[in-house]
Amino acid sequence: MDRKTLNIGLVGYKFMGRAHSSAYMRIPMFFDPGADIRLKSICGRNAQWLADVQKKFGFEGYDTNWKELVKRPDIDIIDITTPSNFHKEIAVAAAENGKHVFCEKPLALNVKDAEEMLAAAKKAGVKHQIGFNYRFAPAIQLAKKLIDDGRLGKIFHYRALYLQDWIIDPAFPLVWRLDKKVCGSGSLGDLGAHIIDLGRYLVGEYDSVVGMEKTFVKQRPLVERMEGLSGSANADAPLGNVEVDDATVAMFDFKNGAIGTIEATRFSAGHDNDMVFEINGEKGSIRYRFERMNELEFYDRENNNGETKGFINIAASQGCHNYAANWWPAGHVLGYDHTFVHELYEFIKAAANDAPTSPDFEDGVACSRVIEAIEESIKERCWINI
Amino acid sequence: MDRKTLNIGLVGYKFMGRAHSSAYMRIPMFFDPGADIRLKSICGRNAQWLADVQKKFGFEGYDTNWKELVKRPDIDIIDITTPSNFHKEIAVAAAENGKHVFCEKPLALNVKDAEEMLAAAKKAGVKHQIGFNYRFAPAIQLAKKLIDDGRLGKIFHYRALYLQDWIIDPAFPLVWRLDKKVCGSGSLGDLGAHIIDLGRYLVGEYDSVVGMEKTFVKQRPLVERMEGLSGSANADAPLGNVEVDDATVAMFDFKNGAIGTIEATRFSAGHDNDMVFEINGEKGSIRYRFERMNELEFYDRENNNGETKGFINIAASQGCHNYAANWWPAGHVLGYDHTFVHELYEFIKAAANDAPTSPDFEDGVACSRVIEAIEESIKERCWINI
Amino acid sequence: MDRKTLNIGLVGYKFMGRAHSSAYMRIPMFFDPGADIRLKSICGRNAQWLADVQKKFGFEGYDTNWKELVKRPDIDIIDITTPSNFHKEIAVAAAENGKHVFCEKPLALNVKDAEEMLAAAKKAGVKHQIGFNYRFAPAIQLAKKLIDDGRLGKIFHYRALYLQDWIIDPAFPLVWRLDKKVCGSGSLGDLGAHIIDLGRYLVGEYDSVVGMEKTFVKQRPLVERMEGLSGSANADAPLGNVEVDDATVAMFDFKNGAIGTIEATRFSAGHDNDMVFEINGEKGSIRYRFERMNELEFYDRENNNGETKGFINIAASQGCHNYAANWWPAGHVLGYDHTFVHELYEFIKAAANDAPTSPDFEDGVACSRVIEAIEESIKERCWINI
Amino acid sequence: MDRKTLNIGLVGYKFMGRAHSSAYMRIPMFFDPGADIRLKSICGRNAQWLADVQKKFGFEGYDTNWKELVKRPDIDIIDITTPSNFHKEIAVAAAENGKHVFCEKPLALNVKDAEEMLAAAKKAGVKHQIGFNYRFAPAIQLAKKLIDDGRLGKIFHYRALYLQDWIIDPAFPLVWRLDKKVCGSGSLGDLGAHIIDLGRYLVGEYDSVVGMEKTFVKQRPLVERMEGLSGSANADAPLGNVEVDDATVAMFDFKNGAIGTIEATRFSAGHDNDMVFEINGEKGSIRYRFERMNELEFYDRENNNGETKGFINIAASQGCHNYAANWWPAGHVLGYDHTFVHELYEFIKAAANDAPTSPDFEDGVACSRVIEAIEESIKERCWINI
Repeated sequence: MDRKTLNIGLVGYKFMGRAHSSAYMRIPMFFDPGADIRLKSICGRNAQWLADVQKKFGFEGYDTNWKELVKRPDIDIIDITTPSNFHKEIAVAAAENGKHVFCEKPLALNVKDAEEMLAAAKKAGVKHQIGFNYRFAPAIQLAKKLIDDGRLGKIFHYRALYLQDWIIDPAFPLVWRLDKKVCGSGSLGDLGAHIIDLGRYLVGEYDSVVGMEKTFVKQRPLVERMEGLSGSANADAPLGNVEVDDATVAMFDFKNGAIGTIEATRFSAGHDNDMVFEINGEKGSIRYRFERMNELEFYDRENNNGETKGFINIAASQGCHNYAANWWPAGHVLGYDHTFVHELYEFIKAAANDAPTSPDFEDGVACSRVIEAIEESIKERCWINI
Repeated sequence: MDRKTLNIGLVGYKFMGRAHSSAYMRIPMFFDPGADIRLKSICGRNAQWLADVQKKFGFEGYDTNWKELVKRPDIDIIDITTPSNFHKEIAVAAAENGKHVFCEKPLALNVKDAEEMLAAAKKAGVKHQIGFNYRFAPAIQLAKKLIDDGRLGKIFHYRALYLQDWIIDPAFPLVWRLDKKVCGSGSLGDLGAHIIDLGRYLVGEYDSVVGMEKTFVKQRPLVERMEGLSGSANADAPLGNVEVDDATVAMFDFKNGAIGTIEATRFSAGHDNDMVFEINGEKGSIRYRFERMNELEFYDRENNNGETKGFINIAASQGCHNYAANWWPAGHVLGYDHTFVHELYEFIKAAANDAPTSPDFEDGVACSRVIEAIEESIKERCWINI
Repeated sequence: MDRKTLNIGLVGYKFMGRAHSSAYMRIPMFFDPGADIRLKSICGRNAQWLADVQKKFGFEGYDTNWKELVKRPDIDIIDITTPSNFHKEIAVAAAENGKHVFCEKPLALNVKDAEEMLAAAKKAGVKHQIGFNYRFAPAIQLAKKLIDDGRLGKIFHYRALYLQDWIIDPAFPLVWRLDKKVCGSGSLGDLGAHIIDLGRYLVGEYDSVVGMEKTFVKQRPLVERMEGLSGSANADAPLGNVEVDDATVAMFDFKNGAIGTIEATRFSAGHDNDMVFEINGEKGSIRYRFERMNELEFYDRENNNGETKGFINIAASQGCHNYAANWWPAGHVLGYDHTFVHELYEFIKAAANDAPTSPDFEDGVACSRVIEAIEESIKERCWINI
Repeated sequence: MDRKTLNIGLVGYKFMGRAHSSAYMRIPMFFDPGADIRLKSICGRNAQWLADVQKKFGFEGYDTNWKELVKRPDIDIIDITTPSNFHKEIAVAAAENGKHVFCEKPLALNVKDAEEMLAAAKKAGVKHQIGFNYRFAPAIQLAKKLIDDGRLGKIFHYRALYLQDWIIDPAFPLVWRLDKKVCGSGSLGDLGAHIIDLGRYLVGEYDSVVGMEKTFVKQRPLVERMEGLSGSANADAPLGNVEVDDATVAMFDFKNGAIGTIEATRFSAGHDNDMVFEINGEKGSIRYRFERMNELEFYDRENNNGETKGFINIAASQGCHNYAANWWPAGHVLGYDHTFVHELYEFIKAAANDAPTSPDFEDGVACSRVIEAIEESIKERCWINI
């Protein structure tokens, strides 16, 4: 039998490492990517933790040095879920060693690094994909399909919010997600990246931008212990400067004539993880809110203009898209982690069939360019062409 | 000019009296019922209060004895907003004096009285209408139209709730709304009557019923002072027995093959005035909730079965019905009191043009019959044919 | 008896004229402003229409020339509901004749005119109020109270949308609301003014702004006949240039450190009249949507941080504010037109008691300044200090 | 090391078989049940399909005869996901062979069979659990906790709906889910069982009941091919009688004085899988809708009675319960399949630690008793004591 097997080497085992592992396990149960998946090695720095994690996550072994992992001849795919400041080095080395590369977002700390990663992957001829997982929620897939089918017509407006509230307390410590050296930016790169990408995916390329940012809490206690994404500080911890944005807002022109706004903030009390967008076109509108990830609201101006005018609340958990249909009967809702199954299924399928990936590192570079343009417009206090 | 003027005599000036007065004032500004309206006299027992109310409510004068009011030759219409135990006597006298009669719901304390009222009105050949005002919310008018247009097809299910929470506290006193002699029943006649009527209006005639009731708080302090619908008791007030239902639930067969349930309760914490219903048919469904009175949810199975399956949230404040269109541009929502403008506009229009009224005392009698059948089924603990 | 009577002269009898008339009628039924109200004269240009309107709206007479109306000694209050380009001249003349002045928004076509109006009213010592009626929705009054009580703490974010969709069709004609000479601007002055005012009312003074605007349909058929806010064009109507904005978006710094965005558009398919805002503070958040005008969502970070964390959906139709409590029992929802009753009740009360008004012409001027700053920032493509 | 390993034998590999397999895989990644899990054998009748499924679902081998599987000495747990008519025989045999038994709901086709299963499990001293998976949604766990903590006080009302719409079309064939011999009943056993169980779990034991049922489509084409839960018939397929209920409604008295209603139907157009309930108590209320499975609405009458009265929309995906907290950060929603992870985690944990299970076969028997009482009350058209 000549069915291919693809061997995975996963770098990172925290939040995203677990999300990816869980996804790899479930792909064969619900989808057929055209190749078998073997969880070969999970990689981190702490051998003791790794031994435990390897078993729980279903990997055959582990590595404590990614530089060795990327050279292993029995690895086909390197999947990078480390903090952002390691992305470039690992991805470039993986590509140079001929591995297909999947990398979490944001692709890199800046456009220059992102471009290097793209160049390395292209030169090596390997598959490359970036972890804009929200694209793979069935409701967003349906949104994309409706737009591609012309159901919205010419688009006028894109408005997107990504609202969280986990660092409102000024006593919350300066964890690595607030460290410019590790993350490059604050809410902009972490949250804004997702809604910038969705704007490109659903509406089109950005043309020009003006942004503003705010750091509401300018000093925080230095962190003592990390706990997941959170952490704690000692009572007498010294203060450190917060050099990243707590919130960033931007307005855009799109090349196709639409206009848009995005807002990313970690200071929106009451919002745990609220990614929201709306798109208005000449023939209809769509609305989405991730905290109700299985629903898409659609206003169909063409068929819906008389006495029954209104938004349709579509249960996108139904068989409207094969991602949903492969799981359960209609109305049996999916969750956050299903998006990872879908994106990695597509990546494995592309690797198995030598087919194009999407979103790829080009998309990662494009997103980084928008982020840098926003940062420049903030510095210059004026509009910047992208 | 031979445009008719209709002179109103309004009995009662509390909650409902004010609602009706406010409606009469606004009819000419927004609708043309084909006759002019003159607020001739408001009637109650307390002359001092009436003098004040008459001026504020825009009446030309007042009466302190309804028996005289109904005989006044300069009165065309008697509008009854008193407690239920007075309805019959006033309505019969008004009809016998040739006045058109509008009567608040429930029509009477029992079927026998209701039938007498109907007989008197028919014999006198006067117009008669009952205050099922919820029928006149634009969203419910739209629901009726969709059903009449066959958009739901054959109907399978009716389920309706009327939930309030104002008497959960056992210290809440035994006000007149909890007095069987004044009201006949508790939540069943007060709240259940509305959703029983909507079932008849939207689905069809009831065939058989079985109900249950509950009085959760069996004794309450006797009321000392009434304040609107509420009241207060002295700290050492003696207790009286509560003889009406705190909650009533019933299941129905409709003559057309549909089945239904209604629930009326004053013990649903968190619900101020939540009238909710849903109707499911072979071609579609509708959902309504009075606390969002300007919205109607509609599932159109005929046009809506593929990838965009879902309920449409229709803003019934838009020009979908002339009741709404006569007020403001789409999206400028209406409130509770607009339902009274609509029902009284229809009543005046019928009186001006000698046209049929709806809902009339026949509808009031039919509703009373259902209420009595529920009460009997509760006593007998079995199904009762209506 | 020395109770004052205030005589009203109302200029304009279309949409807003009717809304104000309906409000004056109902004030005495539900509120006591401390004076009696007499609807003395309604003023417009067409005597034939006025004779009809005067009777329906309950006025004692009419005037066809506002210049005479403002001089009538038997008039105490001039209420201006004309198109914006007449506001200044009428308001100044009314003030100079010693009349109290209520003026619809926007106060004037530009800051200069608005300042003249304010100066005239101040010099004459008359009461002046501007028709920012949304402030008077009970839910927004509750929002204001929660903020004033410190329930949100220091405010971080204000984001507000005012979305409509009535001119998406390019065949929709060039009605007066799209005429720069009559209105000064498009969606910015019409819709944006309301949410700019609410930002000032609820959050504080604006510090600097950058905006963008878009006219999606640049030419439209010239209108032949106006019909309410809409109109129609002949099939062969010549095209005219649209010189106002179809949509305007802006980002702000507030003086108190908060940041904000507003978006006003008439190209948001599916939205009839959707005014939406959210405010996030260190202690809580509020959310509001006018199409559900009786509801306010409140996240109380102080009392609500554990297992029951979430937004409370407050039914602001309940007795949470005396505006609501004066109407009906809890849960009996109010509509758009009740906001006019509330604002005019406050104006009459201020005139009766020689008390301050709010929002007054100062608020109108302040709003105009923000609008002009947005327009300048659009021209200059950079940030402007206000 | 003496950490136990528990070997699973799973009978059935369709919808529920897949849901359970996916859950077993993920338990170790997110939870620690105190034992290792080994997917030993999956069992069905078709060896060809099994070979494929075994590999995809991660099992070490397969069996084609459950009678042999239940005797295998290397199996610790038998998990039954077959159609209901096989439950009893397999469960009894498994227990007699000393295996712990997990069985999907409904436990059996009737009370007698269910009692036999319970007796066999008790006699053998094995762990037994029934698959009422909805209990394990974090929001329902939170509901249970709030009730147990007394946050609702004495309970007055339980109302629950389980609405689907997949068989409205009369051309939909007579699949096994509509076959009385296989399922025992229609919507009552399939859907009603879940909400009957939740009533017992959250409110208490039922006391008496009266029900009604309806079969709207009395004949359907005989099925030719099954496809998941659906199926297709040939164009000229003969018709068969539908002997199960399309819809069942019932009213209850609970032993603690509360009253309740349940409605289970497959004829509610627009509802894919809408399980909804509300519970009202003297101190508060909760509301839940499975299609928004991560949200729980809670009205806290104790702390929430003034100006901010309203239901709190709790995002139960946050760390309010350890089921949710073990997955992702707050706001990263869970889906239908997570409920299986939770229930099987609890079952494995009980087996590993020799601790009680819940819900167990006693709960299955109790649910069957209520179902039979409803069926009897329908036959007798009167109330039945349970």
